[in-house]
Formats: sequence, C-alpha cells, structure tokens
Amino acid sequence: MKILVINAGSSSLKYQLIDMKDESVIAKGLCERIGIGGHIRHTTADGRQVEYDINLPTHTDAFKEVEKVLTTGKAAVISSMSEISAVGHRIVQGGAIFKHSELVTEKTIEGIQSLIPLAPLHNHAHIQGILACREALGPEIPEVVVFDTSFHSTMPPEAYMFAIPYEYYEKYQIRRYGFHGTSHRYVTARCLQVMGKPAQGTKIITCHLGNGSSLAAVKDGKVIDTTMGLTPLDGFIMGTRTGTLDPSVVTFIAEKENLSGAQLSELFNKKSGMLGISGVSSDNRDIEKAAQEGNERAILAQKMQRYQIRKFVGAFAAALDGVDAIVFTGGIGENSAELREDVCKNISFMGVKINDALNKETIRGKEAEISTPDSAVKVYVIPTNEELVIARDTKEIVEGMQK
Amino acid sequence: MKILVINAGSSSLKYQLIDMKDESVIAKGLCERIGIGGHIRHTTADGRQVEYDINLPTHTDAFKEVEKVLTTGKAAVISSMSEISAVGHRIVQGGAIFKHSELVTEKTIEGIQSLIPLAPLHNHAHIQGILACREALGPEIPEVVVFDTSFHSTMPPEAYMFAIPYEYYEKYQIRRYGFHGTSHRYVTARCLQVMGKPAQGTKIITCHLGNGSSLAAVKDGKVIDTTMGLTPLDGFIMGTRTGTLDPSVVTFIAEKENLSGAQLSELFNKKSGMLGISGVSSDNRDIEKAAQEGNERAILAQKMQRYQIRKFVGAFAAALDGVDAIVFTGGIGENSAELREDVCKNISFMGVKINDALNKETIRGKEAEISTPDSAVKVYVIPTNEELVIARDTKEIVEGMQK
Repeated sequence: MKILVINAGSSSLKYQLIDMKDESVIAKGLCERIGIGGHIRHTTADGRQVEYDINLPTHTDAFKEVEKVLTTGKAAVISSMSEISAVGHRIVQGGAIFKHSELVTEKTIEGIQSLIPLAPLHNHAHIQGILACREALGPEIPEVVVFDTSFHSTMPPEAYMFAIPYEYYEKYQIRRYGFHGTSHRYVTARCLQVMGKPAQGTKIITCHLGNGSSLAAVKDGKVIDTTMGLTPLDGFIMGTRTGTLDPSVVTFIAEKENLSGAQLSELFNKKSGMLGISGVSSDNRDIEKAAQEGNERAILAQKMQRYQIRKFVGAFAAALDGVDAIVFTGGIGENSAELREDVCKNISFMGVKINDALNKETIRGKEAEISTPDSAVKVYVIPTNEELVIARDTKEIVEGMQK
Repeated sequence: MKILVINAGSSSLKYQLIDMKDESVIAKGLCERIGIGGHIRHTTADGRQVEYDINLPTHTDAFKEVEKVLTTGKAAVISSMSEISAVGHRIVQGGAIFKHSELVTEKTIEGIQSLIPLAPLHNHAHIQGILACREALGPEIPEVVVFDTSFHSTMPPEAYMFAIPYEYYEKYQIRRYGFHGTSHRYVTARCLQVMGKPAQGTKIITCHLGNGSSLAAVKDGKVIDTTMGLTPLDGFIMGTRTGTLDPSVVTFIAEKENLSGAQLSELFNKKSGMLGISGVSSDNRDIEKAAQEGNERAILAQKMQRYQIRKFVGAFAAALDGVDAIVFTGGIGENSAELREDVCKNISFMGVKINDALNKETIRGKEAEISTPDSAVKVYVIPTNEELVIARDTKEIVEGMQK
C-alpha cells in the first residue's frame, strides 16, 4: 500500500509518498509560491531530483504538478496515480470537534471550514489541499485528515481554559488547543516502546523543539497539558514567536505604536522570539554560532530559550507530580546537544543526570537514551516523524473502511 | 520614633501610624473617593473608631483630614503631627531606576514621574501622596519611598526579558519588573530567620496570594524570577486578572470585539480571573463557598487557580534547581488551608509533605511550619506585613541621615 501524505500551507504544498510495506519514503517534495509564482522540488529515495519554476496559480495546479513529477520524467517513482491507495492530510486546527483522525466526508470539510476563524491561514489552505487532491485523483481515492490538535484533546479544563471572561470561551471557543500533536504522539509512543512499559502509570514530558516549539505533559499516554494555546504562538520563545506574554505588554505596545490586532499578531509571530532578541537570525544554528563568537544578544536569546524550556519542564513535572522520562525531538531537540545539556544539568533536583559523551554524539537523526543508568528520570532523543503518523492513521482508517 | 506609612492610590489614601519602639500599630485608616466625593475611616489600636463622609477634592485635603483624626476628636492618638518623625510611602513602580528604598528629594520625584508611562495610575497617585504630605507636614519631616519592584531588581536578563523585538525594551523599557516585592522581602527574611539559616545557599519560593497574587524564586536571599511582569497583570489567575496569556488571545479578542488597547487592559485587569471564570465573585471566600455548593464554574476557577500556582512552583523549583522552603502569605495564602493542601499534595515528587491538622489550623494571621518533620521541603505560612517593612526602611534611612 502506497500512501501520499500532504501538508498544504497557504502558498505551499509539501508531500511524501510512503510505502507502507516497510514504512519507507519513496519520494518527497515541495511546491512553493502557489498563487504568486510557482516552484517545485522533488526528490526520490534513490537520489534522483528535479527542481524548476512553473506557474502554479492554485493548489489544484500544484497537485497536478506533483502528479507529473511522481509519474513521468527522470524522477518518476510510480507509473500512475492509481497506485496510490489513499491520501493523508495534515490539518493544523481541529478545535474541540476533531478528537481523532478521520476519513474525509462532506461533514469533515464543513467541520474544518467552521474552524477557519481559529486558524484562518492554515485551515483554509488545508481545504484547498483536500479539494485539489480530490479533483486530481477523483473521489474514489480515500482521503484522511490528521489533526495537530487531536493528541491534546484529552486536556482537562483547568489546563485548557484561559482566565478571561467565560463568555469568550462560549462565544468564540477561545481556549488552549495545543499543536504539534502528531509529533508529541509519535515520540510518546516510541518512548513507551523503548522503555518497554504500558502507557498506564507513566509520566512523560515531550519537548518538540524546532522553529516552532512546544512541550507536552503526558500522563498514562494522554496529554494533560501543553504549552501552545489558542494558536501556535503560545508557550516559550521560538524562532520568530514570543511565546506567552504579560497581556499588558500587548496592550502597551498597541497603544504606544498604534497597532491593530492584525499588526500585533504579525509582530509577535514573525519578528519576535530568537530573531527579535538576537537581531541575528531565527535559525538556532546561526544563533549558536553568533553566541559562540560572543554576540551578547545572541547569548541572551539562547539563555532565554534554555531557561524558559527548563521552567516549563519544571511546571509540567509539577502538573504530572513527577516525571519518568523527558523526550527531546524536532530540529533543535534532535541536534542541539548544548541545549539539552543546559536544560538537563539545571534540573538535577529532579534526579535528572545525563551522559555528556552520549548526549554530544546524539545528533542528526540518531535515537538514544542520553541519561545515565542511575538517573531517576530517563532522558531520550527521539527523532520525530509526523508524516509517518499521518500515513499510519490513513492506512488504519482506510483498512477499517474495507472491513 | 513614630512613623507614618502612606499608600496613596488614584482615589484613595491608606495610612498606618507605627511606633518603632515595639513596631506596634498605633492607628490606621483609609480615605476613599478622593476627587469624586470623600470618606474617611480611622481606627486606633485601643479600639476607638471614627468614620464619616467628607468632601475630599484632592490628596492634600485627604491628608489634612488624616491629620485631624490623628490629632483631635475621640480617636486622636497624638497631640500634634510634630510627633511623627518620618513618613514612608509605598510606590508601585520603581522601574530599573530604584533598586533600594530612598529619601525623597527632587530627583526622587522626577524619577517616579519618569516612570509614569509604566504605571500611569499608581505612580501619579504616589506623587500626589508625597506632595500632599510635604504640604501638610512641612519639608522638615523626612519622607522615604519604598518600591514594590526593588526586591525583584536582582533578576537576571533571561528572567526579565520578554521575547519581543529588542527595540521595544530599549525604547519603552518593556521588561519584567515584578511587584509585591515588599511582601516577598518580608516573608523571605522571616523564613530565613525561622529556618535559622544565612541567606547564602538557600532556595525559597515565596507565594503572595491575595486579590493580586505573585510568586518569587529567591536564591541566596535574592530574587531570580517572579511571576508578575511589566505590570501586576502577569503571572497566574487572580481575583479579576488573567495572568499571562497567549498573545493571540489578546489580538483575537481585539479584532473580534473591536476593542482598543485601553479597553482590553480594562477587560483583562478588571473582568477576568476568578471573577470572569466563576461569574460569582473575585473574592476567594465567595468562590470557595460557591464551589462547596457545587457551582461548576466556581469549581473550575478554583481548579485553575490551584493548578496554575502548582505549575509556577514547579517552574521556579526548576529555575532554582531545587527548593528548601515554600512560603505562603497574603490573604489567600494565610487563610486558605484548602488551597495550600491542594498545591502541596500534588508536588510530592519534590519531597513536599504537609501536616494536615497543622495546615488546617494555621489561619487568621498565625505563623507556622506546616510541613512534616520528614518533608524534604519546608512549608511555612508567614503572615506578611508590608507596612512594617516600609516603616523599618524609613527608620533606617532617617537614622542614617542623622549620622
């Protein structure tokens, strides 16, 4: 069974074709600048690549270009799209409606549509992606949607409510939803597997650290709290995002600079975080380099990042009343041994001890237990694989249909 | 030596006359509705009281009324204001300028004035209070200012910076200042005294829980982090305040409800928190009662409050890498045994154990160690006394002048 995984953004469309026989990636690629130009890059597992500019007015055009590179030319991997058994879509915002992945029906699309106010850019793009797929492949190929929020849907109200007037929760469904759920779910499952334990009775803190970052507190295999909130802006300092703020900071800047809600949103999402503090870059590698060279604002950004992550680890340990394992994942979590060391060395009171050499060598996609044998808390680096979770959910749902 | 302690709000003036011989309160009172009417209530230590409406157009008029009740009539405690050796003022916002209490000079007033943009209502009122005092008592009576922010001035940048573009820190001094510093300082000193330890090497978390609430992480007797930020709105759920928020929640409501910065500030400061969630009251006693009666939103507000405090205790334990003592103070901290139990019982992983009976009986101004002898972390209830700190600082500074 071959499954195509789609991640449609407002002007982009990422894809992976996965062979479920061995869960290997057959080919993957990216369409960019949809609606404002167009570009496609496509790579196969055996190293063939095509890349070119092409006019892509809509997501449907982009999808047709994906069809072309998959089935024809020098980087083709299948002879016809009919070889694809199903399509799995990543959806950012499932709100309080979607607690699990599901087969796409008219009702699903209506549901995703109804959540557009909570994630205007993302959910609109996802619908474009679903419709483009259907148009290009025909309705006989099943489509499945997998939500970034679903894994967090087990949070209790005391974790997901904001302390604003209750009427705003009722009127606009303003609450913590959490994101990166597919990644937190993947590394949680893998962590349980590696520990050789059933979910019941375990307390795990998963740290997905990338350009966007979030932590989740997972009890008995279920999320009880997470750092991202109504949107992926909440939590701690990220590449270009603020994380949580004193609301006075927002209203103070609004008044002083005479900025609208939309302008503030742009400021806090795109120009803040590691970029805003360091003035260097939003990329963690650039900041680590500048910090090593003595750039003071880069050093500050780095200290804030590590300190804020540490504080959330402590907060979630208190939320769980203890912790059995801490998992690092995502681009930064998998590669910054320095960050992992800084976070772990400063929570020794919890009984966390890491093996320095092992930590240092666990980079570039390696999986390892980096804690020492006598550490009270196990610390793991587990490379994430959101596409695989989407493909597995898609396979399971499609196979369920056939029964 | 008799010292008058003044806390001037925008339309109020609170005072305490303290005899420094034994640090006892001789009399205390409150002028309210200054500028919009006027009312005074005055009580003496031996139980005499006067209370009446009186037109109080300005803080100077209010101060003259305080002079009248202190020196004449049935609740008089001194024969003339010349018995007062000095006046100590509580100032909310000392910004990055005032790291210690100091004698009021023209430069002090200019400094407090320069911080008005950071605390418009408070600092303006404080200046009115200082000037009214000087006008009524004459310039020969020394005045001292004690700042809510000073005790927090030892925080490192990684704790006090918000992850917004650095230019806003430079342009507007937007950073975490922290408040309730006088209370955190008082209970820290008392905690060290009770533990019989020098400050060096200790790790204490102080929880000031009242209508406004904040926690502080105190290492070696110095604050390294606190929950309140640019203003006293930051941190966790309070009587009518939100605490920290996903900034998207602010901009989302701004856009949907078409609210200005000032309107949002009003909403998050006055209509949110325990009041906004419960719909019952901002007063913790009302909410505990409603929760006991089964009111679901009151139960939710209570759960959020206790859960958020617990998470910050965990975050600060991680910030300190361990904790020797947790101190509860403030109206709620000193009186809600239920809240203390809920917070402490759910952080058993840190080695916190409390004595239930002792916890239950420690209310109404009692001081006690409520942890069990084998608890790895000591837990104290220590009634706060901000006025006494102000009086002590005033005495020390005034005596220093005379040397």
